[in-house]
Amino acid sequence: VSARIEIVALTGLPEVGEGDRIGDLVAEAAERAGWRLGAGDVVIVSQKIVSKAEGRVRDLAAVEPRGEAAELARELDKDPRLVQLVLEESRTVLRAERGVLIVETRGGWICANAGIDSSNVPGGQRVTLLPEDADASARRIRGEVLEAAAVAPAIVIADSFGRPWRRGQADAAIGCAGLVPLDDWRGRSDREGRELAATLVAVADEAAAAADLVRDKDGGAPVAAIRGLDRFVTPDDGPGAAALRRPEGEDLFR
Amino acid sequence: VSARIEIVALTGLPEVGEGDRIGDLVAEAAERAGWRLGAGDVVIVSQKIVSKAEGRVRDLAAVEPRGEAAELARELDKDPRLVQLVLEESRTVLRAERGVLIVETRGGWICANAGIDSSNVPGGQRVTLLPEDADASARRIRGEVLEAAAVAPAIVIADSFGRPWRRGQADAAIGCAGLVPLDDWRGRSDREGRELAATLVAVADEAAAAADLVRDKDGGAPVAAIRGLDRFVTPDDGPGAAALRRPEGEDLFR
Repeated sequence: VSARIEIVALTGLPEVGEGDRIGDLVAEAAERAGWRLGAGDVVIVSQKIVSKAEGRVRDLAAVEPRGEAAELARELDKDPRLVQLVLEESRTVLRAERGVLIVETRGGWICANAGIDSSNVPGGQRVTLLPEDADASARRIRGEVLEAAAVAPAIVIADSFGRPWRRGQADAAIGCAGLVPLDDWRGRSDREGRELAATLVAVADEAAAAADLVRDKDGGAPVAAIRGLDRFVTPDDGPGAAALRRPEGEDLFR
Repeated sequence: VSARIEIVALTGLPEVGEGDRIGDLVAEAAERAGWRLGAGDVVIVSQKIVSKAEGRVRDLAAVEPRGEAAELARELDKDPRLVQLVLEESRTVLRAERGVLIVETRGGWICANAGIDSSNVPGGQRVTLLPEDADASARRIRGEVLEAAAVAPAIVIADSFGRPWRRGQADAAIGCAGLVPLDDWRGRSDREGRELAATLVAVADEAAAAADLVRDKDGGAPVAAIRGLDRFVTPDDGPGAAALRRPEGEDLFR
């Protein structure tokens, strides 16, 4: 067990455009930072640049809101074009009240505005959608890093989530490759030899949250690396962040 | 802005009992670890040892479940004595289904079983309750560290929380002193000069989650220290984790 971890922001990435290989940019940023990427490292990449690389950018000026979106936008005092995109990206609307629109995305995440974000997207009216399948994105980026740097650290794709009951946002994982997303202590024992009833640690989410502490919200540092989590890094890509989605049948808050 | 943080587990604490000064134990553990506590450090202490030091331990064998608790326990297939304690510690029951009991504690936290925990409490039937006021606990511990080590790092008291919609638990803050709990970027601009709409980072929760990554669930490392968050550490104790509680009127999931 590692009793020490280190987290560094890998800065100086160029503005990312469609078709860019994020893995190459990660390898270059690590080299610039003097951070020798290791096979036990975890690299956290913010959703925004992954979406940009995958062309998941939309121009609000080109969006034509339909009736349902226009009506919901009026109720919530939101931009009807944004609401149109949110509905297109969603399976279900959980809440639409007090200016807040909480949905389940087509990819299965429950979040505000389907994760659509307008900050740090060049061009006044442009927004990013979430990657279609961020676990696949993480696997691809891991492969790119392996090609560029001859080492395959774990990759986590992180996004900011608001939380019921608690103010503020914390970063959580929407995709990962090569990281154990949930560390399962159920069935193991505590120091008294008593079984631990329900300890299933959301390692990928905690890693995403930890990396956010070295990042600036002005968008200058969309990549961070963590050293010391080797015990959670696996050669195979593993189940991904899909394992973090609670099935609807087990959920008490839908 | 710090682009690098370091987190270390401060291990080897003795079993904590009522009346122990956690701040002294933190100072001793830091010294043993060769970690020179700094005024910009953040020390994360797990709820369990704070509760033990404050005598917030109950023996289930001495609890007499009343009718409401007995009935709820039957429905949920839980220990009626545990349910009795949960109800005593709660203001409101949010959900009681499928073996899960989600409440708002008297202290204002929404969590399963009012945060009552039986792992790592010596004696077969003993459980810990949450501290009565974990912000006050954090302030007291900060004062104790100042006396013992002549330096006043920020203190966070952390507990594991399950989350709606996401599997697994992540650590979050239930108390803090000397740490900015929420970093407010609202009104600041992104790189394009566009205002960031809703960026309020739950720093105290992210710090708690980060510290959990160096901790073992067998209870051997209930204290961790983070270096590199100086920009969030304040001489005054500040608003505490109370600032993280979302007021009921702003909440869509009660």
